[in-house]
Amino acid sequence: MSDFEETIRRLQSEKGVVGIIVVDSAGRVIHSTIDSDATQSHTAFLQQLCEKTKASIRELDSSNDLTFLRLRTKKNEIMIAPDKDHVIMVIKDLS
Amino acid sequence: MSDFEETIRRLQSEKGVVGIIVVDSAGRVIHSTIDSDATQSHTAFLQQLCEKTKASIRELDSSNDLTFLRLRTKKNEIMIAPDKDHVIMVIKDLS
Repeated sequence: MSDFEETIRRLQSEKGVVGIIVVDSAGRVIHSTIDSDATQSHTAFLQQLCEKTKASIRELDSSNDLTFLRLRTKKNEIMIAPDKDHVIMVIKDLS
Repeated sequence: MSDFEETIRRLQSEKGVVGIIVVDSAGRVIHSTIDSDATQSHTAFLQQLCEKTKASIRELDSSNDLTFLRLRTKKNEIMIAPDKDHVIMVIKDLS
């Protein structure tokens, strides 16, 4: 099993995790554990949010960059870990 | 000391906290522990991010709402806690 598969497997076994989406640097979904409609709507929103946040952080300080983004909502928690080649998004159910 | 002042004092005493900004529901800064230029640039960026995130979350699910947003960057960590009357933003130094 590759490091990548191992990471996904580890994340998926964590309590409350209901979805994992991985996109590559071109924005293509390369892995998802949820259905394709939900993947598409979440990916569009989260990528836009991630890009906008990165741009704003660099606007405040051009030598800085986003490493991790976590949103908690009334219903779930979403974690986004951007790196050079991938963005990993994890959706956790709070209920 | 009011609950509000007590909360600010408690946050400020936490390790690494370098700035706290509180804005009211109309977007006016009602409390800040950092200089006015930094307050203005951070507030503009963070409010926009918070509003955009809230709107996107409600777009995905109209009965959902943002309760907490946390960004980690190479240099610092920013936590945003929106509620009905205020948004509290806390900036933590990671170095």
